[in-house]
Amino acid sequence: MMVAELKQQVLMQKASSTRTMKRISNSFHGTSVGFVPTMGYLHEGHMSLVKQSLSTCDHTVVSIFVNPIQFGANEDLDVYPHDLEGDIEKLESAGVDVLFQPHRETIYPKGFKTYVQVDEITDQLCGTSRPGLFKGVATVVLKLFNIVRPQHVFFGEKDWQQLAVIETMVRDLNLDISVHRVPLVREPDGLAMSSRNLNLSAEDRQKALSLSRSLEDAKEKIRQGTTAASQLKQSMKDRITAESGMQIDYISICDPISLQEIEEVKGRTLIALAVKIGSSRLIDNCIVKD
Amino acid sequence: MMVAELKQQVLMQKASSTRTMKRISNSFHGTSVGFVPTMGYLHEGHMSLVKQSLSTCDHTVVSIFVNPIQFGANEDLDVYPHDLEGDIEKLESAGVDVLFQPHRETIYPKGFKTYVQVDEITDQLCGTSRPGLFKGVATVVLKLFNIVRPQHVFFGEKDWQQLAVIETMVRDLNLDISVHRVPLVREPDGLAMSSRNLNLSAEDRQKALSLSRSLEDAKEKIRQGTTAASQLKQSMKDRITAESGMQIDYISICDPISLQEIEEVKGRTLIALAVKIGSSRLIDNCIVKD
Repeated sequence: MMVAELKQQVLMQKASSTRTMKRISNSFHGTSVGFVPTMGYLHEGHMSLVKQSLSTCDHTVVSIFVNPIQFGANEDLDVYPHDLEGDIEKLESAGVDVLFQPHRETIYPKGFKTYVQVDEITDQLCGTSRPGLFKGVATVVLKLFNIVRPQHVFFGEKDWQQLAVIETMVRDLNLDISVHRVPLVREPDGLAMSSRNLNLSAEDRQKALSLSRSLEDAKEKIRQGTTAASQLKQSMKDRITAESGMQIDYISICDPISLQEIEEVKGRTLIALAVKIGSSRLIDNCIVKD
Repeated sequence: MMVAELKQQVLMQKASSTRTMKRISNSFHGTSVGFVPTMGYLHEGHMSLVKQSLSTCDHTVVSIFVNPIQFGANEDLDVYPHDLEGDIEKLESAGVDVLFQPHRETIYPKGFKTYVQVDEITDQLCGTSRPGLFKGVATVVLKLFNIVRPQHVFFGEKDWQQLAVIETMVRDLNLDISVHRVPLVREPDGLAMSSRNLNLSAEDRQKALSLSRSLEDAKEKIRQGTTAASQLKQSMKDRITAESGMQIDYISICDPISLQEIEEVKGRTLIALAVKIGSSRLIDNCIVKD
């Protein structure tokens, strides 16, 4: 067991340049390559993506890159949490083959000016309050795909809208990549796992439970026969703002594919929300009538 | 010789679906693939790209696709000339391996919503009067690259700005593709070859010579010591508008890389222009002080 662990640790390759990463990817030719792009500060949610890649593919590449162009001017780019040593330990123990950890200038060299824009599904939900978010996400993800050249990529349903954007981009740009959706992972008390949870005070951490609980309430109401989205949204809002200092960014009840708001919950429906607690902005979602 | 020609003709494969094209591309794995994207109605300019690909690569793929999203509402999409039989004959005789000729719905299926935008270098020259042009070009070219998967691509310097956009996109999106620049090809009398020349009346065809002649004049003036861009532009304008019915879209004297306008011709400089003659819009360019 010790020997096996040691072997895995020795074998994780690290690349910070695109040239090294491409050289490693080329050496994987003929095998299946899985890829998990992350912004680091890895938690069990990330690791569930990694595990799914490890069990699906011959080789697994994980990237850690805090993508500056998806952060707005007043967002938390500078305080985004990081723990590279801890991340490396987790990835090595899991048996990841390659960590790609590029510098900012490697991904966005001087004169960079090409962007990918997915229309329509980026106008709602997080796209409303974070207008450059999905342009930044689509652009960096396409670049990472082109550098790593995976056949399989793994994204969490926690970022439901991001998944919709990636799936659309992969289809529209004719990429030969299977996008795997991995369920959201929660803390034992129900809080959706997020690297941003670290920035919560103990008190705000407690208040943050109102997000998942408001989703559970809405689910229960739907089970009991409520279908009016306005009514469901109002009771979610009441539940969340019962705590002080909660600033609701959006509560959306929408089609899980088009992300268009609906008025009556009939078939499969996404309930998603974003709430600011102090300086942190948290998101959560669930599917009802699945 | 007859036998060799016959063999070439038999061997040109045709694909109209992305699946067939990708299957053929996969079968080329381990060999070098060159790609020439066109809108058809092939002339010697296109064939010079094809020839360069044939002499550079193991396999050559040519696409014919009149890309609707790069045409504005009042542009010539519906009257864009075509001659598929003639094109096939030219490509087969040249020894092209594959013709990819997708339907519009193959490239832009229902629900298509992902676009590639190259900033800055698309604001000037043709980008000014044709605002969606380069977004449409970059998007379709990236899609075609992803379907055909070439290592080498060939573009003509006639569309200088398009070449700059493609080169920037390939670099920024980390594509493993060599972009080959191929010189503009002219008719014996100097007119830059273009599929759009077909739409000119005999009289307009004659007037169209003023484009290349104004470039020659400017070159000569620069040789004789003129450096002021404003002066050069004015004499080009005078030369062109000496013909009746000529509507100048732009005359640009600019840096060949950034496409930023310059005031004094010192080093390597691009002179580019677009002129409407009747319903046709023609472009031409040359490099000075190379």
